[in-house]
Amino acid sequence: MAISESAEIEAGTNVRPGRYWIGFDLGGTKMLALLLDEEFKVVGRRRKKTKGHEGVEEGLRRIEGIIEQLLEETHVTKEQIAGIGIGCPGPVDWKKGIVKEAVNLKWHNVPVGDHLQKKFGCPVAVLNDVDAGVYGEYRFGAGIDAHCVLGIFPGTGIGGGCVYDGQIMHGKKLTCMEVGHIRISSSGRVSGAEMSGTLEAEASRLTIAAELAKLAFRGEAKHLMKLAGTDLSNMRSKVIAEAIKEGDEEVEKVVRRAAKEIGIAVANMVHLLCPDKIVLGGGLVEAMPNLFTEEVYSTARRNVFDCYKDEFEVKAAVLGDDAGAMGAAAWAAMRTATKTS
Amino acid sequence: MAISESAEIEAGTNVRPGRYWIGFDLGGTKMLALLLDEEFKVVGRRRKKTKGHEGVEEGLRRIEGIIEQLLEETHVTKEQIAGIGIGCPGPVDWKKGIVKEAVNLKWHNVPVGDHLQKKFGCPVAVLNDVDAGVYGEYRFGAGIDAHCVLGIFPGTGIGGGCVYDGQIMHGKKLTCMEVGHIRISSSGRVSGAEMSGTLEAEASRLTIAAELAKLAFRGEAKHLMKLAGTDLSNMRSKVIAEAIKEGDEEVEKVVRRAAKEIGIAVANMVHLLCPDKIVLGGGLVEAMPNLFTEEVYSTARRNVFDCYKDEFEVKAAVLGDDAGAMGAAAWAAMRTATKTS
Repeated sequence: MAISESAEIEAGTNVRPGRYWIGFDLGGTKMLALLLDEEFKVVGRRRKKTKGHEGVEEGLRRIEGIIEQLLEETHVTKEQIAGIGIGCPGPVDWKKGIVKEAVNLKWHNVPVGDHLQKKFGCPVAVLNDVDAGVYGEYRFGAGIDAHCVLGIFPGTGIGGGCVYDGQIMHGKKLTCMEVGHIRISSSGRVSGAEMSGTLEAEASRLTIAAELAKLAFRGEAKHLMKLAGTDLSNMRSKVIAEAIKEGDEEVEKVVRRAAKEIGIAVANMVHLLCPDKIVLGGGLVEAMPNLFTEEVYSTARRNVFDCYKDEFEVKAAVLGDDAGAMGAAAWAAMRTATKTS
Repeated sequence: MAISESAEIEAGTNVRPGRYWIGFDLGGTKMLALLLDEEFKVVGRRRKKTKGHEGVEEGLRRIEGIIEQLLEETHVTKEQIAGIGIGCPGPVDWKKGIVKEAVNLKWHNVPVGDHLQKKFGCPVAVLNDVDAGVYGEYRFGAGIDAHCVLGIFPGTGIGGGCVYDGQIMHGKKLTCMEVGHIRISSSGRVSGAEMSGTLEAEASRLTIAAELAKLAFRGEAKHLMKLAGTDLSNMRSKVIAEAIKEGDEEVEKVVRRAAKEIGIAVANMVHLLCPDKIVLGGGLVEAMPNLFTEEVYSTARRNVFDCYKDEFEVKAAVLGDDAGAMGAAAWAAMRTATKTS
């Protein structure tokens, strides 16, 4: 389909500018570019390592490069691109299209929006990567038709995002919904952001992995020990799920404790925003969707007022790695439509 | 002015229906009705004890009665009322105009909206009292022109509300922003809602009063002892402020500790919603505005990421007791305008 479009353009007839959208997910380790048609069907995809250590200039070049390759492969021209949406880690200045602080990329105040706009000559929406993922799930996945979707993605950190009444919630110029950094406990455990008692400090995969390494060391998780040893770096989501499946009860307890902490955070959020759908995503949840959704739901229910108990659902995300890029593209389309109407 | 309006109506000429709005604040101990003109200038006011113990029917009759008195006094007819906005305690079903649970009034699922609509023949908007107050401050007070105003009102409990992009944030059908019920600590201290570690359990006036009664009992607050003895019921906001002014350092420490907890909650909210204005209200703040705004602001600043540090202000509310009724009226007007446009 994309090829015939391109053929039309070469013939100079029936050129319909703005037929395609680029959705981009800039991750700490890999980047994903999707080409989407008018109905947001994915018609092309390209993936690459991010290589953040190579610096900002090289990073921007890699982003351009993968988009150019994607266009080439699908025989779509720049002129056919209606807009680009790019989800980036850390807080972003969405008004100016600037990545404020992406720790893993060592990016600080990078004007990725302007850069791509100049390069590709189309509108570019820059948003936080988790916001993009939650918007993706809201538009195309587990959160369709909700009044308010809260997304929580436990990983190395814990990301959060919220779509309220069709809009991604953000500050006057900065993104927000940093669910991982809300303090839920007076525990002294410290997160990567050097904050104690936060959800991230209590329930991220890193915290879980550290607890599990202790279990393995103490001989309380024999399957895990066989699968991963005592090295925290080996405690990947699938390994953890496998150890639980094979019968490591103590491993399951650690994961359930983390899920309960997320449940407490969800209860907080129900008392604040009363979201009708809570979507859980990320590798840990993908590996153990039932454990997480059940534990988070039951803990949240126990910790909210009666009148809120039946007002929300907890679901696992369904779009996997595509959520962010799809959401970024759809958001760019929505913002462009709003501006021109 | 109101009288001549009424005279015009009696003469049957120039009757302009919908010239006035009623704003109503239904509190646990007192109720306030305001009559506002088209520009939301207060042109009449009436106050009465709520007497919640007399039951739902009597409560509704008292609400009607005070509105009727207000109209009589100002010579305004029912036909001139464009709408009524009423702020009620506890969670409300804003779609159906039902007060779900007002503990102090012993109200449970009371359809106050329908009732007033039938009685006065005009649109009625039912909203949570704190939401109404925050909307009032957003429209006419300390939160004018903000993208996102978060209101926190520490009192016997701790109320919260949020206006985001001109809209009061609420759930699909229930109100929310129950800031007092978010868990910020693993402390075992329990709130009136029987939840532990919540902001309300840690920092409400009731918690402060209990700490102060201990101080007085232990002889560590001589001015407070003179002013209030050891009776928790005597630890009113003005008394507390007075004791601090006279030099009770330990009293000041207790209040500052509570303000710090509110600051932690504000930091949480900055990481979630990135509000540009945080408005603190209620009796405690009115009695000690500088202490609260300074302590809350500095604590919140210390507990947010660098990029959020300069993104918010903390201000004391300025409308006092009128905020709720004014906000309710303005919200009713906004909702009516949206519906008919």
